[in-house]
Parts: sequence; C-alpha cells; structure tokens
Amino acid sequence: MQETIQTEKKEHLILTGDRPTGPLHIGHYVGSLRNRVSYQHQYKQYIMIADGQALTDNMDNPTKVLNNVLEVALDYLAVGIDPSKTTIFIQSQIPELTELTFYYMNLVTVSRLERNPTIKQEIVMRNFERDIPAGFLTYPVSQAADITAFKASLVPVGEDQIPMIEQTNEIVRRFNRLVNKDILVECEAFVPEIGRLPGIDGKAKMSKSLGNAINLCSTAQEVTAAVRNIYTDPLHLKVSDPGHLEGNVAFMYLDAFDPDKEGLQAMKDHYVRGGLGDSVVKKRLEGIMQELLGPIRERREEFAKDKGQVMEILRQGTMRAREVAARTTDEVKSAIGLKYF
Amino acid sequence: MQETIQTEKKEHLILTGDRPTGPLHIGHYVGSLRNRVSYQHQYKQYIMIADGQALTDNMDNPTKVLNNVLEVALDYLAVGIDPSKTTIFIQSQIPELTELTFYYMNLVTVSRLERNPTIKQEIVMRNFERDIPAGFLTYPVSQAADITAFKASLVPVGEDQIPMIEQTNEIVRRFNRLVNKDILVECEAFVPEIGRLPGIDGKAKMSKSLGNAINLCSTAQEVTAAVRNIYTDPLHLKVSDPGHLEGNVAFMYLDAFDPDKEGLQAMKDHYVRGGLGDSVVKKRLEGIMQELLGPIRERREEFAKDKGQVMEILRQGTMRAREVAARTTDEVKSAIGLKYF
Repeated sequence: MQETIQTEKKEHLILTGDRPTGPLHIGHYVGSLRNRVSYQHQYKQYIMIADGQALTDNMDNPTKVLNNVLEVALDYLAVGIDPSKTTIFIQSQIPELTELTFYYMNLVTVSRLERNPTIKQEIVMRNFERDIPAGFLTYPVSQAADITAFKASLVPVGEDQIPMIEQTNEIVRRFNRLVNKDILVECEAFVPEIGRLPGIDGKAKMSKSLGNAINLCSTAQEVTAAVRNIYTDPLHLKVSDPGHLEGNVAFMYLDAFDPDKEGLQAMKDHYVRGGLGDSVVKKRLEGIMQELLGPIRERREEFAKDKGQVMEILRQGTMRAREVAARTTDEVKSAIGLKYF
Repeated sequence: MQETIQTEKKEHLILTGDRPTGPLHIGHYVGSLRNRVSYQHQYKQYIMIADGQALTDNMDNPTKVLNNVLEVALDYLAVGIDPSKTTIFIQSQIPELTELTFYYMNLVTVSRLERNPTIKQEIVMRNFERDIPAGFLTYPVSQAADITAFKASLVPVGEDQIPMIEQTNEIVRRFNRLVNKDILVECEAFVPEIGRLPGIDGKAKMSKSLGNAINLCSTAQEVTAAVRNIYTDPLHLKVSDPGHLEGNVAFMYLDAFDPDKEGLQAMKDHYVRGGLGDSVVKKRLEGIMQELLGPIRERREEFAKDKGQVMEILRQGTMRAREVAARTTDEVKSAIGLKYF
C-alpha cells in the first residue's frame, strides 16, 4: 500500500546551488539550506557549486571563487545535506553545461537578455554600467543549461530570481518547438516562505563583505558579539519605553528561527507594551542561535578534518551529475542533428 | 644543412575553415582554398567545418547547415586538400571549444562586442536589428576559442575579418595577463592577395542564394551558361566599340585565374582599344574555368562515391583536433585553477 502511494506521487527533480564566493550564513540557512535538508527526503535533489557562474563577475579574482568551493561543500555537509541522498557537484567540471549554453545562446536575443529584470538589477548592484562582461549578460542562458541538463522540474529561488526561471522556460519551449519533440523539461520556481534575512545591521543584504553576517562557521564568541550588536529599535531607549517590531532585526531573526511561536508572541507583546529590555530579547535570540549553530559548527569541524574525503564526495557527485548532463546534451545535439559519427 | 635551415624556420600553425551553409564556389577557391592546398606543404594546417558557428544565425534551419558538412568536405578533398597533411575537423564535435568560449566570455564586455565592425556589418546584412541572437553577437568569442584552442599563429581571413583577429588577440592578452603566464598564443591575420570575387552578375557577394555563383561542383553546362551570362561592359555594344575593364567581371575572373598574364594583357589592350567582342573574352574565360573545374569535379565525384570514407576522414581529423583542443582547454582551466580532482 505504502509503495502504491509513493509511485503515484509526482517525481520531482530539484536543482539548486550557490555561487562559491564566500562562506554561507544563516540567511542561506533559513532561506534555502534547511529546506534542502528536508527536500532530499522527498525529491531527487542536485546541488550545484556554481564556480563557473561565480567567475562571470569574478574573473579578475578566480582564487576567491576556488577557495570557497570546499568551504561551501563543508557548509552543506554541516547542515545535514546527505551526499547519499543529494548529488552535490561542481559546475565547472561538467563541460556539457557549456555545450548546452553554446547552443541555447542561439535561441535568445540580446535584447531579451538586456530586459531580464534580475540582470538589470545586478548590473546596477555590481556597478558594471556599460562594462558588463559578456558572460555576465548571458549567465541566464548558462543557468538554463544547468537546469535543463538535469531536467529539473523544481528550482528553489528567491522572489528576485523568478525572471531567470521564465527565461529558462522560454528556451525550453523554443528548443522543443524547434526540434518538434519534448526533450527539455519546463521547471517551476519554488519560492520559500521565508525570504531574505537582513544583515545584523538591518541592511537588506547579509554578506561577508558588509561584515553584517552570522556565518554557519562563526565561532560561539562571534555569534555572541553579533547578537550583542544586532539592530533593534533605535527609539527603545529605556526598558520602560514601548518598543517597535518593524525593522527590528532581533525579532526578524526570532521569527525565522524560534520554534516556540507562542513564547515568542508573548515576548513581542511585552516588548511593544514597554517594560522589556533589548537585552532579554537578545538573550533569547542568542540561546536559539547558539543551539542552532553549535551542532552545525561541530559537524563542520569534523568534516574539515578530512578534506580529502570531502573532495571525494564532490568528485563522486560530479561524476554522477556529469552522466546525467551528458545524456541530455547528447539528446539535444542529436535532436538538432549534430551527430555525425 | 637542410635540416638546420628547416628547424630555424618559424613553425606556423594555420587555422582556417568555412561555415557549411552552401556549396563552395570559385570565390572560395581563389580567395582561400587554393592557398590552403599550398599552405599544407609549408605549415601545420587545421581546417574547421564551422557547423556550430553556422548555427548562430541558422538555428531555425539546422538542416541547411548539417547537409552541407559533407558537401564542404567533398569540396576540400576535390581541390586537393590532403587529409594526411591537413587536419579537417567538425567544430561541433569538439565540446572543449564551447568550454573555452564560456570562460573567454568573462574577458570581453558586451559593449566591446557591439563595437566589433564585422559584427555590426553582418547584423545589417542579416537584417537582425535588435533581434540579434546572443550566440551571434558573441561568435567572435567562440572564434577566439577556435583559434586559441589550436594555438594557431596564422589565420587566413578576408580584409573584413581583421577585427575578429584583433578581438582574439585581446582575449589572448587578457587571459595571459590574468594567469600571469603565456598560455595562449597571439595570431596574425593572413590576408590573401586576391580578395573577394564578385558574383557573375557583378554584385559584390557571390553566393548560392543570389544565384550568381559558379560552384566547385557546377556541371560543365552550368559553367558554360554562367560564363555566357557574365557581366561585362554594358557600354560595349558593338565589337568595334572601345571596352571598359572597370567592373567587368569577365576580366576580373581572368585576372584571378588566367595563368598567361602576358596573353591576358594583350587581350585587355585590344578590348580597351576596340575591335574585340565579348564573346572572345568569354571563350577564353570559359576555357580556363572548364580546365580548372573539370578535374575538381572529377575528383569530387570520385570521393562522393564513398561517403563513408569521407566521414571517416572527418572522424579521424576531428579526433586528432580534439586531442589538441582538450590539451589547451586543460591548460586554460588549470591556469585559472579549475582543477579539483
């Protein structure tokens, strides 16, 4: 009976991943990593360490990317992504992805790429102006190659990345129409309930370079210091003052991580009423963060003792992933007719 | 003694090729094919059948490209390109070329590609306006991958393609500077003395689609008809009229193909003086064209009898070329640091 139910369930394949440009932090954890830990029990899951994509805006400093590949893998393993359930692979080691990119490039116009809202926004964020590397403008095409190579049907992304999924599906439809056969698979954006966490300073983006992140590999002392400095309510000067929850990062983090929703609600009510000091709120948050990050840190240190083993996990995942990507690439090239021998 | 001299000679490697979008014609012959026949004795020569590049503006009709791969190979063999001296290969069967393209894309800005004069001109020619396929805008990057994969030092191109060579060398310099090592090789444009031949109707471009070409595989009857219809001097109405040489296609072809330069000069003088009919000029031209194309057509028919053998030549050339391209790609990726296992 159990078996019948399982085979009736739609078989989804998830592709997700990260650009290895810095250590992963609690923003990644709440927005994606912890979901991946549960997805791996429900779906077939591929996680890509996107070193090739990271190079599209870091070509002047490849070392930054390369040094973070192992770190990101350690973060994955530390949070509980299980390589026997999830295929973790390194993008640049699968040349077939660049082949697919090459052919898909003929299915997208330059003006379509220039209209991509994510790209437009990122161009501003990175101060590229007119000096956009061609690889950066076209990275949505490369992303389409990544997604379709594995025939992924679900792609967990932030709200801001939805245009990327639309771009991929446009390519899928154009290609299938061209060869008159459903070879590529359309995918759905899978937007998590909890979106982006702000940095501890209240700035929208949590990042290592802004110094406002709590990393998964932060020490207990670093966590303590970060929570002590967290942005709360600047108008809440005396304990007796009524406090505000809007823009209060301490409460935003509690919303994301506190499992005791009732206790948290009581605390919020007290804070708004007045009479509750920030230090009490921060103490609660610190306890929760230490409890979350302690075991992650320990597992990370354990895995870090044998980096050879971690690389072996990546090698095996990459080999498995490459087989799948090679099969799709072969189908794509055959459908166009690019098989001569 | 002989050996010493040979080793002192600079070892050039030539990369050249064609987009397989139609049969090759006498314009290709005079501008490049006959040079390649002689280059193969002096240099190491690779000839690429650029099916991938042809798809950048023919993705809606891949069959047009694919059907011409064998035809172009037959043209090569027919004019005397010797697969034991020249490596003939099919671009799409060397995935490493797309890998190099992928990484080089990060070394070129979008605005630099948009300023490329060859691309600008071709965009107008192909009526792309704003709907330029991304693969078309970026094909100079792919061309840089083709050239550098073989470390070609000489690239025979028409005058109009010189900006492509400059683009390649920019990438070479940027890459070598980036990795602080001379891995890639700069190349020289090798512009042949005889440039583009006009079509038989006097239009600048000879092409199958304009119906103004004499193809290498044209029948004797087709050659006769083409020469009969060739554009001469519209003011030369009577035999006794003085004729003009400017824009006179019959004489342009004679300039390109007639080995008897003195005899040709005498004929030109007579034509300009008056008293020489077009029919005499055309007769001379027809004799020369038939003499040139007869043996080519025969060899072509001979090779066409065993297409399996031609495909085997392409397979072997492609295997050899792939080894070289894979070696360079490995060097490039290693230099960036993209080797993990």
